[in-house]
Amino acid sequence: MLHLKALTDARWFAQVDAHLDEILIDHAHCEKKAAGTALNLIFHYVEDRELCQEMTEIVNEELEHFHRVLELLEKRGIKFRRLRPSQYGSRLHALVRKQEPERAVDRLLVAGLIEARSCERFSALADHVDDPELADFYRSLFESEARHHTTYTRLAQHFAPEEVVNLRLEELYEAEAAIIAEGEPLARMHS
Amino acid sequence: MLHLKALTDARWFAQVDAHLDEILIDHAHCEKKAAGTALNLIFHYVEDRELCQEMTEIVNEELEHFHRVLELLEKRGIKFRRLRPSQYGSRLHALVRKQEPERAVDRLLVAGLIEARSCERFSALADHVDDPELADFYRSLFESEARHHTTYTRLAQHFAPEEVVNLRLEELYEAEAAIIAEGEPLARMHS
Repeated sequence: MLHLKALTDARWFAQVDAHLDEILIDHAHCEKKAAGTALNLIFHYVEDRELCQEMTEIVNEELEHFHRVLELLEKRGIKFRRLRPSQYGSRLHALVRKQEPERAVDRLLVAGLIEARSCERFSALADHVDDPELADFYRSLFESEARHHTTYTRLAQHFAPEEVVNLRLEELYEAEAAIIAEGEPLARMHS
Repeated sequence: MLHLKALTDARWFAQVDAHLDEILIDHAHCEKKAAGTALNLIFHYVEDRELCQEMTEIVNEELEHFHRVLELLEKRGIKFRRLRPSQYGSRLHALVRKQEPERAVDRLLVAGLIEARSCERFSALADHVDDPELADFYRSLFESEARHHTTYTRLAQHFAPEEVVNLRLEELYEAEAAIIAEGEPLARMHS
């Protein structure tokens, strides 16, 4: 599924069942961070016109999702608050190479990878949760996360030939599967 | 005009006449930075629902302006590129107090101040440039910058009483007028 090397297992669903409120709050933070990632990519690769255009759409969509999660929290009487993030994002970002153009390839692939995992988790959550409103909500986000994954992966080819990108994608997606398999004690969207 | 303590003078118009291309490129960078400022405010004040809503709209609008400037550059055969920024933004940000809630007040007032100055410069440019397409373009941006100024100034009152905000606004706007009067050798939107 979307190049992912491992699917979500029972350990995470147990975290969801025990801490659904935290998962929802963390989800809002993830949407906000996704908007920040896309905006940062505009800042760093301003000369790439297509990238700027695509990233602008992603910023808008992620912020729209952010507000949809906030509304959901409000409706459920869950106060939005700061939350210690999972290590998932920082562990992935640590894999990004420092030199350009490899850095651009990795930043785009990692962003696409996080979208892919979010997409997989939304799909898993839609099937897992009993609450129909919540299930519909997760289903409604699925398509755009899949699209973002594709956009990021395609844009990586602006910075390296397709076969080079694909080799690196394999490496990063293997590393991500290992991080997910290891898991984290905090209940988070990507724990 | 919009609380500003000094209007743009002949020195800046001379920079515009000599380096219009750089002013246009810098303008694109300014729109991008304005989107970043609004997104950062969401990151720092996530608990303020109205602020998050207003900042989201500003992010979207600034990115739309960014693309409009990019299109204008393309149409004129001007290559968008990195540019050493003016000192204006960093000198204003240096005035932001470190402790909350004063920090929030200052960040919002400084953001509103930059919008006010942009607004004043767009209005001045619309009257100054001979090119009717460019004059119309600047005129079309005027209204939203004025609205953003009002939004930021109003949101500052979420973090301090109105009279405290107004006193601080006076101080910051005096400091800004001094920075603008001093000027800078680089031709920039806020030089």
